[in-house]
Amino acid sequence: MKLARCEYAQNSFWALLDISAQTVAPIAGDFSQWGPALTCAINSGNAASGQAELPLTGETLTLSEVRLLPPVEAINRVVVAGANYAKHLAADFGLAAPSQPIAFLKAYGALIGANDPIRYPPLTDELDHEVELVVALGLTPVDPSNPLDSVLGYTVGNDVSARDLQRSGPKGVGMDLFAAKSQDKTTGVGPWIVTRDEFPEGSPKLQLKLSVDGDIRQNGTTADMTWDVGQLLNFVEARSSFSAGDIMFTGSPDGVGQGTGKFLNPGEIVVASIEGIGSLSNRVGEKIVTG
Amino acid sequence: MKLARCEYAQNSFWALLDISAQTVAPIAGDFSQWGPALTCAINSGNAASGQAELPLTGETLTLSEVRLLPPVEAINRVVVAGANYAKHLAADFGLAAPSQPIAFLKAYGALIGANDPIRYPPLTDELDHEVELVVALGLTPVDPSNPLDSVLGYTVGNDVSARDLQRSGPKGVGMDLFAAKSQDKTTGVGPWIVTRDEFPEGSPKLQLKLSVDGDIRQNGTTADMTWDVGQLLNFVEARSSFSAGDIMFTGSPDGVGQGTGKFLNPGEIVVASIEGIGSLSNRVGEKIVTG
Repeated sequence: MKLARCEYAQNSFWALLDISAQTVAPIAGDFSQWGPALTCAINSGNAASGQAELPLTGETLTLSEVRLLPPVEAINRVVVAGANYAKHLAADFGLAAPSQPIAFLKAYGALIGANDPIRYPPLTDELDHEVELVVALGLTPVDPSNPLDSVLGYTVGNDVSARDLQRSGPKGVGMDLFAAKSQDKTTGVGPWIVTRDEFPEGSPKLQLKLSVDGDIRQNGTTADMTWDVGQLLNFVEARSSFSAGDIMFTGSPDGVGQGTGKFLNPGEIVVASIEGIGSLSNRVGEKIVTG
Repeated sequence: MKLARCEYAQNSFWALLDISAQTVAPIAGDFSQWGPALTCAINSGNAASGQAELPLTGETLTLSEVRLLPPVEAINRVVVAGANYAKHLAADFGLAAPSQPIAFLKAYGALIGANDPIRYPPLTDELDHEVELVVALGLTPVDPSNPLDSVLGYTVGNDVSARDLQRSGPKGVGMDLFAAKSQDKTTGVGPWIVTRDEFPEGSPKLQLKLSVDGDIRQNGTTADMTWDVGQLLNFVEARSSFSAGDIMFTGSPDGVGQGTGKFLNPGEIVVASIEGIGSLSNRVGEKIVTG
C-alpha cells in the first residue's frame, strides 16, 4: 500500500493512495495513532487487515487536486545516515571507504514535497543532488536483532546539498553538514511511502536514478550500500533512539555534481526515482539574492 | 520574569515562576500561542504588560512538587552553535581559532531537565561536560540587523558529550557530533528561561561555572565568546531558519574532560550554573551495559 501526506484546502493529513484510481482517501489522526499498529500488522503478515483498519475519514480526493507533502510530521526527526556507497565517496569526494557510516540530523524545514520547487539558497554557488532511499520508521524501539521490523516502508529522497558550504567547516571539526544539508526548502522527499510488504524480505535492492532536464546523472542500486538498512538502523539507534514516524536517509550513490562538476542551475527539473516507489520532480528556483 | 516547563500529574505545561514564593503558575497552551507576543512586548519595553497578558490557568503549584523539564517543546529544534571560545578549542582540542562557528542539530531526545539523571550511554567511556549559555527564541524570522529582538530569554545548558565517539567519524568527514551529542537523556537544559528584559542590552556577559562533586571544572564568561549571541543567531538563520520556541546552545568555555582527562563518572553530581539564570544539578547514572 501507498501512504501519502497531503495538503488540501489548507489542511495537512495522511492518506491512503489508490494508484489505479488516482485517488487519495484521508486518514484520521496523527501518524502515532495508526502507524505503529499498521507496522505491527505488516510484521505479522497481515498488511491487508492492517490497511482495512486504517481510520479513513471524509471524502476521497483525486490525487491531482492535493499537494504531496514530505511523508513525515514536524514532530519527528529526519536522520541522514551517509557515507554508504564506496564509489560515491571515492569518485565524488576522493575519500577512502570508512569503517562506519556517519549520521546527522536534517532540519525539518529543509524538506519539500514531491513536486515543490527546490529553493536555491543565497549562500551557495554549488547546489548539488543526491538520490537516496529513505526509510520510514513505524514501530520503535528498534530491535537490534530484527531492525527491519521497525520499518513501515520506503520513500524517495533527494538530499540536496550546498557543496561549497559543506567544505566550509572549521579545520579539525570537519564538514559543515548543517549548512550543506539543512538549507530551507531544498530536500525533496516522497512522493509517498510504499509499505514494506510490497518488497521482498530483507534490505531493499532497488535501482535509484536521478536526471537533470532529462540527462541521467545518477544511476545506482541500493544493493551497493556498504551498510544495509538494518545495519544503518542499528547504528543510529545505538547512538540516539528513533521514534515512530521518523525518517532516515540512507546515503547517495555516485554521480553527484561534487564529482562531475555539474551542479544544479535555476530552472532545471530534477527527477529522482526509485524502482517500485515513485519519483520526485522538483524545479530548481531562481537563486535568492540577499541585500 | 522566569518561565519554566513543568511536569505535574503526568501533564507537561509552561509556567510562570515566582521565585520568592517558590511557586509556579501554569500557562495555557503551547509556546506558539504566547511566546511571540511576549517577545514582542519585551522588544517594545513592555515586559510587565506582556507578563500580565500571559494566559495563566488552573491552580498555582509549589516549585518543589513539579518536575522541571527542558524549556523547549518537542516540535522545536535544538541548535548548537559551537567552536565559540578560542581557549576551549586550543586547550581542550588543540585546534586553532576557526574563521566561523560550526552549527549542528541535537536530537530532542537527548535533553533532560534541571534535576534529572544524566544517562551514561553504553557506547562511550569518555562522557564529558560543557556548560553553555542557551538562547530561547521567541519571535522569528530573525532580523539580521536586530537579531536579539528574536530572543525571549536565556537558560543554562550542559552539552554532555561522548568524546571517544566524537573522534570516531570517518576520515575526511570529521567529528561525529551526532554520536557525541545526541545520546538519549544526557543534555541538561534549564532550570527555566530568564527573559531578556532582566539583562543589560546586548549579548549577555555572564559568568558560567561547572562543578563535579563540588570540584570546579569550568569557570568562564560569555564575554569571551568569539561570536556573540546576535552573530550566532545570524550565522544559523542564514543557513537554516529558526522557529519561535527553538533553542540555541552557544558553545562551551575551556575546562572540559577532553583537555583535563577528568571525564564524568557514575554517581557524580554535575552542577552547571550561569549568573543571573540558575543552576542545573544532574547526577550521572550507572553506565549502561548492553548484552
